[in-house]
Amino acid sequence: MGKKIKKIGVMTSGGDAPGMNAAIRAVVRACSYYNVDCVGIYRGYQGLIDGDFKNLSARHVSNIINRGGTILKTARSNEFRTKEGRAKAYKHLKNAEIDALVLIGGDGTFTGGMVFNNEYNFPCIGIPGTIDNDIFGTNYTIGFDTALNTVVEVIDKIRDTASSHNRLFFVEVMGRDAGFIALNAGVGAGAEEILIPEEDMGLDRLLESLKRSKRSGKSSSIVVVAEGDKIGKNVFELADYVEKNLKQYEVRVSVLGHMQRGGSPSCFDRVLASRLGVSAVELLLDGKTNLMVGLINNKVQTTNLENAVKGHHAINRELLRVSDIMSI
Amino acid sequence: MGKKIKKIGVMTSGGDAPGMNAAIRAVVRACSYYNVDCVGIYRGYQGLIDGDFKNLSARHVSNIINRGGTILKTARSNEFRTKEGRAKAYKHLKNAEIDALVLIGGDGTFTGGMVFNNEYNFPCIGIPGTIDNDIFGTNYTIGFDTALNTVVEVIDKIRDTASSHNRLFFVEVMGRDAGFIALNAGVGAGAEEILIPEEDMGLDRLLESLKRSKRSGKSSSIVVVAEGDKIGKNVFELADYVEKNLKQYEVRVSVLGHMQRGGSPSCFDRVLASRLGVSAVELLLDGKTNLMVGLINNKVQTTNLENAVKGHHAINRELLRVSDIMSI
Amino acid sequence: MGKKIKKIGVMTSGGDAPGMNAAIRAVVRACSYYNVDCVGIYRGYQGLIDGDFKNLSARHVSNIINRGGTILKTARSNEFRTKEGRAKAYKHLKNAEIDALVLIGGDGTFTGGMVFNNEYNFPCIGIPGTIDNDIFGTNYTIGFDTALNTVVEVIDKIRDTASSHNRLFFVEVMGRDAGFIALNAGVGAGAEEILIPEEDMGLDRLLESLKRSKRSGKSSSIVVVAEGDKIGKNVFELADYVEKNLKQYEVRVSVLGHMQRGGSPSCFDRVLASRLGVSAVELLLDGKTNLMVGLINNKVQTTNLENAVKGHHAINRELLRVSDIMSI
Amino acid sequence: MGKKIKKIGVMTSGGDAPGMNAAIRAVVRACSYYNVDCVGIYRGYQGLIDGDFKNLSARHVSNIINRGGTILKTARSNEFRTKEGRAKAYKHLKNAEIDALVLIGGDGTFTGGMVFNNEYNFPCIGIPGTIDNDIFGTNYTIGFDTALNTVVEVIDKIRDTASSHNRLFFVEVMGRDAGFIALNAGVGAGAEEILIPEEDMGLDRLLESLKRSKRSGKSSSIVVVAEGDKIGKNVFELADYVEKNLKQYEVRVSVLGHMQRGGSPSCFDRVLASRLGVSAVELLLDGKTNLMVGLINNKVQTTNLENAVKGHHAINRELLRVSDIMSI
Repeated sequence: MGKKIKKIGVMTSGGDAPGMNAAIRAVVRACSYYNVDCVGIYRGYQGLIDGDFKNLSARHVSNIINRGGTILKTARSNEFRTKEGRAKAYKHLKNAEIDALVLIGGDGTFTGGMVFNNEYNFPCIGIPGTIDNDIFGTNYTIGFDTALNTVVEVIDKIRDTASSHNRLFFVEVMGRDAGFIALNAGVGAGAEEILIPEEDMGLDRLLESLKRSKRSGKSSSIVVVAEGDKIGKNVFELADYVEKNLKQYEVRVSVLGHMQRGGSPSCFDRVLASRLGVSAVELLLDGKTNLMVGLINNKVQTTNLENAVKGHHAINRELLRVSDIMSI
Repeated sequence: MGKKIKKIGVMTSGGDAPGMNAAIRAVVRACSYYNVDCVGIYRGYQGLIDGDFKNLSARHVSNIINRGGTILKTARSNEFRTKEGRAKAYKHLKNAEIDALVLIGGDGTFTGGMVFNNEYNFPCIGIPGTIDNDIFGTNYTIGFDTALNTVVEVIDKIRDTASSHNRLFFVEVMGRDAGFIALNAGVGAGAEEILIPEEDMGLDRLLESLKRSKRSGKSSSIVVVAEGDKIGKNVFELADYVEKNLKQYEVRVSVLGHMQRGGSPSCFDRVLASRLGVSAVELLLDGKTNLMVGLINNKVQTTNLENAVKGHHAINRELLRVSDIMSI
Repeated sequence: MGKKIKKIGVMTSGGDAPGMNAAIRAVVRACSYYNVDCVGIYRGYQGLIDGDFKNLSARHVSNIINRGGTILKTARSNEFRTKEGRAKAYKHLKNAEIDALVLIGGDGTFTGGMVFNNEYNFPCIGIPGTIDNDIFGTNYTIGFDTALNTVVEVIDKIRDTASSHNRLFFVEVMGRDAGFIALNAGVGAGAEEILIPEEDMGLDRLLESLKRSKRSGKSSSIVVVAEGDKIGKNVFELADYVEKNLKQYEVRVSVLGHMQRGGSPSCFDRVLASRLGVSAVELLLDGKTNLMVGLINNKVQTTNLENAVKGHHAINRELLRVSDIMSI
Repeated sequence: MGKKIKKIGVMTSGGDAPGMNAAIRAVVRACSYYNVDCVGIYRGYQGLIDGDFKNLSARHVSNIINRGGTILKTARSNEFRTKEGRAKAYKHLKNAEIDALVLIGGDGTFTGGMVFNNEYNFPCIGIPGTIDNDIFGTNYTIGFDTALNTVVEVIDKIRDTASSHNRLFFVEVMGRDAGFIALNAGVGAGAEEILIPEEDMGLDRLLESLKRSKRSGKSSSIVVVAEGDKIGKNVFELADYVEKNLKQYEVRVSVLGHMQRGGSPSCFDRVLASRLGVSAVELLLDGKTNLMVGLINNKVQTTNLENAVKGHHAINRELLRVSDIMSI
């Protein structure tokens, strides 16, 4: 069970995601509710090593639930991968009398937490915060829903101009290893085709599909492409190839990039972040450690950090089928 | 099992909800994919009685996935509650050679479908489309997520002015019988208190809570009130009562009203509508009837229409607790 | 010419408006650019009386250009209407060694500034910040453009549901004495009729117009009503009257209220606020006083505060005509 | 004066812009108001050559004021540059008994109109519709204000992630020959530097400015770059150069691309389009031709098409200065 928790540290680490501030707010206020001190750790593990801490009261997190980014900033830290780095971090935590950590981030964040917990037996709970939704142990990660809305709103705009000019657009969205954003936003935006890392459609089938789409009377088309799609070309080469081989459309490319990480979080992400933040604090106070909190079947549930990192969150193949049917 | 389905009718009925067009599109395209004809029925059951039909091909539903409202319009029909009305409806369906119906709407819509099915043994599948989320047999109804985002965006704006002036705002949101919108949007908007039909907080506790909130250093506050809250006063009377008895805030009221029903659907609602629309068609082709399709644990699942209507979709009490903790 | 300006105070007063923060930022950074100190005065004239001041450097106003509300808060002050109140204010200014004031607000704000200037010969420059656009000496006030977009986006949503249900909506927007918001947002939202304080349409003509609109094949209609419209009924009574006398539409009412004051400012308002803020500081440094800066013919120009307060900014009658033509 | 106008054709040509639909609606409804027939010409000059026409009544343009793109589609036509092409176009116009044209677009569109008018003495009025704002004879082109809001909203999102990670972003916006979008959106988004075609800042000054910005305590920075900026590198090369030579920031690039052309128009653009559309029809009915309608000093005013094409709409140098001051 370990000793009584009197002070909890909270940090964000890895790529930022909309809703991280809502999660920070939830952790801080839950600490306040349970009469536990809360310390914000800046710039993730690097701030842990540097002792970059600030006490946070319930009022410090007023009016941040609606803001993108993270008030605690985030960074990647190579130093934390070294024993020396982690020793410094531990020293700072002890000096500050911090008893436990809430880690908001993705796989890398959780791996860091596990290693640290193994070495120092330091209580850690993880909260999945990443737009990519590629975390095992939760149906949704914080930021995913907002990113989908951002992508869909942008593609709605691109469709305005695509259909005014009868053009074919390739729209690249984030997702180096996982197609969640591409698949969901593709269905939501009414894309004709969706190219994801998990599925190699092949160039021939893509061309065939776009030809069929043109024959069926569509004057414009959108293809959504995840960064890490399996077709083996970058999106500009892909567009060139299609333009040369299809000769039916003017082809254009749009790479959405970092805007997908920002923006005011959706209601869904704010509620999710609030629920997970409260739960993380309650678990620590209850003596738990080495867990990730997630949402499964609309209930907050826990997964071992190790399983969260090693497990694979598979995409929903039903959605691929729905996409196929919709693009008729 | 009944005869082979060759033509499917689709309608929207009851209050409109964002994502209804995405559901119509999904039904039409799924019909096209399975080589079944599709007929749009205008103005819900009233259009059924009037024979207000139009054949819909895959191209008729281009560029509607992102549009609020319903291209098929919607209406309430007293005539359909009569045997004569339903007889007319049946005659029009027979004349048009429509073999089955997809009904997009809420409780009233499904009740109509059940009665009609009982009388004429006419295959019907229901899709839950309402912003209220008050349907048993699905975690989410189509339109709920969009309405939450609309409410939260508006309250974000109100908070700007509330905190500039140190004011207390009562914001009334939709929900005559169910507090789903108030509860989720209240948590998402960081409301200090949330008043819902399912829970009678009592005036004394409300005043006490607002006083505590002021003492804790908050300069402004938002109270989210569902239309059908149990406190027994309308929102203007409630605001007056609080202003007189609290004397610490200038109090203002905002009634959000019908804007909550409109707007471009969120990605979540578009994906949900697409999945349910496809599934409804597939179920009809598979000989099923009298079912509602819904999303449970992120999977499309079916519920008898009767259970969907009679069952009660309870609010999530964990969220009430999260709201309490967040408003410290 | 007066003595050299070394320290400038800035405040927001009256109703808040989107873009006030962008104006504060511009004043602070212009001070920094010209090596002048800048002091933020909280809660308008009341904060002046209370000595509620804070030194502001260029970094204090980072990341506020996009935020609604005002970080300096705003209030109405009866005490400043008294000689004693103003004497206190003057004492605080002297103690803080503030040499000049930038006043962001509307008519009431400028009147306060004039009175103060007359009594104490204290340099003041006004910046028009109000959503109402009812200030003489500028084509646009800060916040007006954002409020128009807010109103138009909300009416777009209401139109979704209006046209799904074939309804007539009365939408009340801000503007007790001036119809700028109603007129511009009405044209922008494609309203059938626009009722403003400057023009008494009369109930008969309104009914006639709505009948004609119905006859011409419109299935739904929006009437935009300014708070202070001249028809002599509140919007609910008006809607009742029309429903009873027209009997062709279901009628609904939506009162937009305070959401119109909030939200992230539009690009137009941010640029306007930046230009006016810089100009206000430069004028003070140039020894000017008792002026309001405004935008006329896309150039920053000045008007005596007295003229700004006494002058009348007339609505654009061409827009009324355009509205008439559009609603055919 | 020429013969009486009984039928007016309307087209959109060149790149599409938000608000083109509002302009089409205004032209159609003004025709209806003045009892003149209106014909929509699809795909710009190419549709003129192909006789791709459709009669438009007031009801055909319902519910399009809020939609991006153009319902009449747009295209570039090489054939219209030939005498043969224009002869075909004239023949179709005569056959359809169209007496005059309203041309919505930019420089290329107006040049086409002038040539056609010279050859066939065919009445033409131009309406400036382009996001670039690079047209002489109007303070604002239709679509410019909306594009600015789109850009600023996206940069707000990028700033969330930039400041969470302490990064420097280069954001490329549209504007091959003109810096209006970059300059206004740059000021509106609070960019540290703005690179435009009209002004060669030079690499050294850019580096110096970014160093100063870092020294002054800024943790993140945004540089807005117009496509056609004069620094002589594309935005990726520029970013590489800065990263190598500055060594203080992680540098990232975002190219906004075609999303800038789409989206629901702002209130400003809808009102502008409505005013210009009405005026274009009234001028034709008044026997005028070869003019462009524009907004100068908030009044609708006309310019000869030739001057509109040959004149140069200079950027506002005051804004460059404001940008400099703001980035302190």
